[in-house]
Amino acid sequence: MSKYKPSPFAPLHFPDMPKIDGFTMATAEAGVRYKGRTDLWVMVGQAGTQVAGVFTQNLCPGAPVDWSRKALSVDTKGPRVVVVNSGTANVFAGQKSVDAVVETAQGIADIFGAARDGVLLSSTGVIGEALDASKLTAQFSAMKASLSAEGWADAARAIMTTDTYAKGATDSAVIDGVRVQINGIAKGSGMIAPDMATMLAYVATDANINDSVLQVLLSDQVGSTFNAITVDSDTSTSDTLLLLASCAADHRLITDVNDPRLDDFKAALHRVLFNLAMQIIKDGEGISKFIRVTISGAVSDKSAKKIGMSIANSPLVKTAVAGQDANWGRIIMAVGKAGEPAERDKLTVHIGPHLLAQHGQPAPHYTEADGAAYMKNAEIDIRVDLGLGDGQSVVYGCDLTHQYIDINADYRS
Amino acid sequence: MSKYKPSPFAPLHFPDMPKIDGFTMATAEAGVRYKGRTDLWVMVGQAGTQVAGVFTQNLCPGAPVDWSRKALSVDTKGPRVVVVNSGTANVFAGQKSVDAVVETAQGIADIFGAARDGVLLSSTGVIGEALDASKLTAQFSAMKASLSAEGWADAARAIMTTDTYAKGATDSAVIDGVRVQINGIAKGSGMIAPDMATMLAYVATDANINDSVLQVLLSDQVGSTFNAITVDSDTSTSDTLLLLASCAADHRLITDVNDPRLDDFKAALHRVLFNLAMQIIKDGEGISKFIRVTISGAVSDKSAKKIGMSIANSPLVKTAVAGQDANWGRIIMAVGKAGEPAERDKLTVHIGPHLLAQHGQPAPHYTEADGAAYMKNAEIDIRVDLGLGDGQSVVYGCDLTHQYIDINADYRS
Repeated sequence: MSKYKPSPFAPLHFPDMPKIDGFTMATAEAGVRYKGRTDLWVMVGQAGTQVAGVFTQNLCPGAPVDWSRKALSVDTKGPRVVVVNSGTANVFAGQKSVDAVVETAQGIADIFGAARDGVLLSSTGVIGEALDASKLTAQFSAMKASLSAEGWADAARAIMTTDTYAKGATDSAVIDGVRVQINGIAKGSGMIAPDMATMLAYVATDANINDSVLQVLLSDQVGSTFNAITVDSDTSTSDTLLLLASCAADHRLITDVNDPRLDDFKAALHRVLFNLAMQIIKDGEGISKFIRVTISGAVSDKSAKKIGMSIANSPLVKTAVAGQDANWGRIIMAVGKAGEPAERDKLTVHIGPHLLAQHGQPAPHYTEADGAAYMKNAEIDIRVDLGLGDGQSVVYGCDLTHQYIDINADYRS
Repeated sequence: MSKYKPSPFAPLHFPDMPKIDGFTMATAEAGVRYKGRTDLWVMVGQAGTQVAGVFTQNLCPGAPVDWSRKALSVDTKGPRVVVVNSGTANVFAGQKSVDAVVETAQGIADIFGAARDGVLLSSTGVIGEALDASKLTAQFSAMKASLSAEGWADAARAIMTTDTYAKGATDSAVIDGVRVQINGIAKGSGMIAPDMATMLAYVATDANINDSVLQVLLSDQVGSTFNAITVDSDTSTSDTLLLLASCAADHRLITDVNDPRLDDFKAALHRVLFNLAMQIIKDGEGISKFIRVTISGAVSDKSAKKIGMSIANSPLVKTAVAGQDANWGRIIMAVGKAGEPAERDKLTVHIGPHLLAQHGQPAPHYTEADGAAYMKNAEIDIRVDLGLGDGQSVVYGCDLTHQYIDINADYRS
């Protein structure tokens, strides 16, 4: 799909995703920007479908994000429809962006019988161009006619931009003796940073859970999944993560997030979110190596995360990893620049199994040869203990390579 | 000096730097790391020389920074000596780093008759290796014998690491009818970020100004000069900016920073600091284009600077500039991710003379052709008005190119 070489972490195949009771979908070639590929996905949740969402924290969000934030809380009677296009982000095109959002939602209302203000919209692609909504609405009749409970792989492909592979995950859980299914798809490979990114992810389940519980689950789990990854510290204006429950499963409705019947579902949901987040970071633009940064001993979890992100976002750390250089001096630098409590002489730094530095100096038994050998791995583990407290965090990033520049220096050309 | 191609902004020649009364210097090939080039500079200020300094805010500073911070306030009777080596940063090598610092200072004390604890030391280069101080001290006798009031260009070359050109600036001012001289040299081209960077700068003057006034001048002026530049957001552990006054000039001592006799000197000092800072950013690792980001209309100057830095540090903005793409959508994104007050519909964005966006949408008369033509320039002006208040700031950066990765992926090899 992408003109760039696939990520070395591209999975061999898209997972086999089962149908989920209460959801149907379709894709189309709307021709928003790309030619010869699908760029539009519509998913319909049956009447009564519950929805939760998390959106970009960028203070200049796109019109679709503004719209969908409001749509979440609209009490719909009929079906819930999710509409996603790739090619343009429909961001920062003024009233035209807003008009395009309304026109798209109205088109869905007309064709699918959904409440207009409850339609959930996302757009991804170039910023600063309005979406031509007529290209989407022209497809809706045919898409309605082709709705199917299958099609998750097609959906994942339709929402790709610079992604080099389609991203999907599936899992299941048991609630009250009833097996429920969780499917998710996602896109995103650049502008990935904490607090969401040009990252779109849609997770659907047939579990019978109300929207307020779904929202708490999503908000609880996003910190250790989608908000723990960073490609380039840049935060998109379009990030959207939606969780929809058709409530088709035959168990009693769950309305309390502390209901013990939720335990298995919580774990399965986390696996799906984490899996999708890892697929996104492993398709980070230009990635050649995956980086896991584990911080411990910080004064708080929040401080640990900030230090972890400082390391994972450091261009000098990222280029060192790209160059297979166990340059722990740059790790120390990135700890120090985070602005969080840190003491040079209390730091312990590991790369993989190797203790590199402690007590303010290189570890006596560490050799450059050990480091060099380890850095040939595709997945690089960096562990820093601050020696100050109990705060910990794990963040995930990737290296900075020539291909990142190739992709981003000519994205619009 | 560097194995990488020179910055396109490299000046045609090093400025003609006059002698400064009260200062002598020498350089040597100490063989710390590099072969066949100088890597050691010693400058001697006559007895009574006044000193001020600003250092890295990285919380894991190098031993030379710890030492020099203390040395600033030592009351010396004899000469003041500055010693700078390139090749190793002498950072995070534990007690060995500290020992190397003491041994170097002791060597200077022995040979030059300076108070040991007042010797000012800097080291720049690889982190995590201790300096072999004996390589420096072995040179001191010969260096003392070759001390000269000339040699600023040689000094600037001796302290280079990945720099592609030597950096110097000179200016003069009149105090009480007496002309005083200001010379400065600097190094640095990577790990450049606010709050200092792997940036070393040494400024000397014969003006008769006491150290407390020098310190206020330096602290006041660093915000709009060295702390307004960023290459990659990474903050070095070694940054040092020193201002030395030999007090050799024949005017009455200035002890009050508000003394009106200082006005001309303040302006000249700012020109020197700004000139050196621009030379550093224009030698930013892998630079092909210089970027000036001007923020106005922010809620405060501090907020404006944070937004400016968010733009100047954004990998997506930097790669867009490298690709000659007037991608103002990414500028909006970077404004939004800064976390500072901003309202999408009040933003105004200019690139050079072109109004690109206002009122939350592209400007009606702007064309992609205008943007594309402007982006061919070597110096790119980005102006964002927030429309919220009176806060303003200017920051300076550079684009992100393949050469940045080449330099940093194999710096140690």
